[in-house]
Amino acid sequence: MQVSELLDKWPDCDCDSRYAGFLALSREDAETFFGLLPAHDAAEFLLELPIVERKTWMRLLPPDDAADLLQEVNVDQRVGLLNLLDEVNRKEVAVLLAYAEDDAGGLMSTRFARVRPDLRVDEALLYLRRQAREHLETIYYVYVLDQEQHLQGIVSLRQLFQAPVGATVRDVMQTTVQTVPEDMDQEELSRKFRQYGYLAIPVVDGERRIKGIVTLDDIVDVVDEEATEDAQKFGGMEALDSQYLEASFFEMFKKRAGWLAVLFLGEMLTASAMGHFQDEIAKAVVLTLFVPLIISSGGNSGSQASTLVIRAMALGELRLRDAYRVARRELAAGLALGSMLAILGILRVVLADTFFGGYGDHALRIGLAVGISLVGVVVFGTLAGSMLPLLLHRAGFDPASASAPFVATLVDVSGLIIYFSVATLLLSGTLL
Amino acid sequence: MQVSELLDKWPDCDCDSRYAGFLALSREDAETFFGLLPAHDAAEFLLELPIVERKTWMRLLPPDDAADLLQEVNVDQRVGLLNLLDEVNRKEVAVLLAYAEDDAGGLMSTRFARVRPDLRVDEALLYLRRQAREHLETIYYVYVLDQEQHLQGIVSLRQLFQAPVGATVRDVMQTTVQTVPEDMDQEELSRKFRQYGYLAIPVVDGERRIKGIVTLDDIVDVVDEEATEDAQKFGGMEALDSQYLEASFFEMFKKRAGWLAVLFLGEMLTASAMGHFQDEIAKAVVLTLFVPLIISSGGNSGSQASTLVIRAMALGELRLRDAYRVARRELAAGLALGSMLAILGILRVVLADTFFGGYGDHALRIGLAVGISLVGVVVFGTLAGSMLPLLLHRAGFDPASASAPFVATLVDVSGLIIYFSVATLLLSGTLL
Repeated sequence: MQVSELLDKWPDCDCDSRYAGFLALSREDAETFFGLLPAHDAAEFLLELPIVERKTWMRLLPPDDAADLLQEVNVDQRVGLLNLLDEVNRKEVAVLLAYAEDDAGGLMSTRFARVRPDLRVDEALLYLRRQAREHLETIYYVYVLDQEQHLQGIVSLRQLFQAPVGATVRDVMQTTVQTVPEDMDQEELSRKFRQYGYLAIPVVDGERRIKGIVTLDDIVDVVDEEATEDAQKFGGMEALDSQYLEASFFEMFKKRAGWLAVLFLGEMLTASAMGHFQDEIAKAVVLTLFVPLIISSGGNSGSQASTLVIRAMALGELRLRDAYRVARRELAAGLALGSMLAILGILRVVLADTFFGGYGDHALRIGLAVGISLVGVVVFGTLAGSMLPLLLHRAGFDPASASAPFVATLVDVSGLIIYFSVATLLLSGTLL
Repeated sequence: MQVSELLDKWPDCDCDSRYAGFLALSREDAETFFGLLPAHDAAEFLLELPIVERKTWMRLLPPDDAADLLQEVNVDQRVGLLNLLDEVNRKEVAVLLAYAEDDAGGLMSTRFARVRPDLRVDEALLYLRRQAREHLETIYYVYVLDQEQHLQGIVSLRQLFQAPVGATVRDVMQTTVQTVPEDMDQEELSRKFRQYGYLAIPVVDGERRIKGIVTLDDIVDVVDEEATEDAQKFGGMEALDSQYLEASFFEMFKKRAGWLAVLFLGEMLTASAMGHFQDEIAKAVVLTLFVPLIISSGGNSGSQASTLVIRAMALGELRLRDAYRVARRELAAGLALGSMLAILGILRVVLADTFFGGYGDHALRIGLAVGISLVGVVVFGTLAGSMLPLLLHRAGFDPASASAPFVATLVDVSGLIIYFSVATLLLSGTLL
């Protein structure tokens, strides 16, 4: 079996057959394979291995991957696995473990290529050739450091290649280097990578001493993770800490129940709002038939607007100062979309009355009440859906919390009030 | 002003001030800056420049970036800008333009490092040193090609560095290379990058002749793009072709109106469903008060379930064969979540009756009807929300189309039927 084949089948194999598949690989392939396993799977597999074998595999991992793996196991197991490492690596891994998982410090690798500024270019290349024998994260960028690890500059392998042999590193290095602090959040970090198109960014402390580098391949995972978190929040729940199939039932319940209960309590206001119009409803039951139609239209248009705004904000395309432009756009969109639905709604009422009857003499008025309400509800939905993420961001919350269900709940209550008010106005003296 | 500062301010500058900012940069900075502008902004800016200056800047771009830029302008402008290139580059760009934008062929770059298999390692390094003077996409991977451009193997710069000087490229190259065909969709491509952690993948034709390479930095954009498309579809609309603030009003309207109208037509069934229970409603208006509460709970729990499943499928964590496991999980989650809401719902009815009255002798029965319906609606919502994406995928559609509004509409209709059926059953002979 090939490495890629085994990787494909891995998550679905049962323990015995995957261990057999692993043993069937050549030593070299097995090492490649183990290096490619996601941290979570690697941790699980390591714990399935006979204890005497764990050490070999654990020592294969570069420190940042080892730290990622150790994040996936419980505290007792962590100490045991950490002790399998030699002393130098153990220290390095322990340092990485101390950072929050989703900070620049937690994402960085300490295996980067480094040179002194006074080396000649050909010496630097020879020196790099020696460093390349270790597992470096990238040799594409070379970091120029003084004795105290202060970052003096950066030079790409390409620049070293192109430079005249007699030049020093200092002659060819770039001294303006974009750096990030250890505690920069991964979301902001991924925005930096997007904006500048870097392959790697160095992480420095307050004195500009280099602590490690974050590379683009770590960021792809971050981008995925952030998009998943945003999607789950937008779907009206807290973001899961693990993959869907691996989350425990209790975690799943907890992450979903909270928001569902809050939305339910909010939605109780609809019962109060409708209770307020109970007399009107009793006189004209036909009005209630259109309640779900009208409030869902508000929710749907709100969901569209909030998706657009939340996603544009996540990608940095939209900022707070654009709020006015967004409001104008969404007002216009809401009027256009609401009018379209109003026409459909009026047609529905009038046609139903023509073919099936049941609306008495008031079909046109009822149709009008439905139509006008639809315009109002859709305009309110688009405005609420687009402004809420901006307001939440302004107030320091995550805009993705302006989830579709949250906006829908908000619009449901106001939609009911709009609908029954319009209906009361149009129908009083006739049906009411 | 620095490059990074100008980049930050760019999207919000008006034309005059950004041109002034651009002119204030040193020549070198200006080139860096232009290389960093996203294709869309670069195209816009290029067309703002005096015609005589366009050629210089156009010729700075590597072919794949030039092709991306040309995708952003209209056909007339495209021909004009294409003619600014020298002949060799024009041909290369024209080839890239012929690929669909979101295929491997459209994403690839033709600027990769190449060597012949029979070169000695030290010769190869010298030869690479010459190639590095051009703008290569990456020199980290070196592709080993025969005379007819057939891909023989791949060797990393690190491997060349580590090899004994006398060895040939053939001695150190890897011959099992993961390749992709020109027409592989970018979504599948990004999954390959995720799975194997590559920095670059070569694109080959049917005869294994290399056409170009796709690098990880292109994939970050793809991952963003796909997440945006999925989010917009999930929000109940078609994916926009451009950024939110740049989409024309007509495009925005078109992408939103279609789904909104479809959902509206679907939601009309709620009016029919309620019409069916009109007699019961007339007898017990109090029942209608809980309609929004109950159907929205179904929609919300459906939205949670479909978010989880859609996102897990997009990341490749979940496949069709997991359907049965998902169904069991969601059935259990639905029962637990529904029971929780049922308790809240029954409490609401009983407490409201105790403190404000209005439910007559039937408060407990009404509460029970609400509670039992909630369990039914939430179970139905979670099952529909989780199974629909899997079914859509099975039928060849994009699972992300099982948007929150779509699931909510489905659940609204069935929720009404569940609620009124339960109420009829529980209350007939008393309130009904």
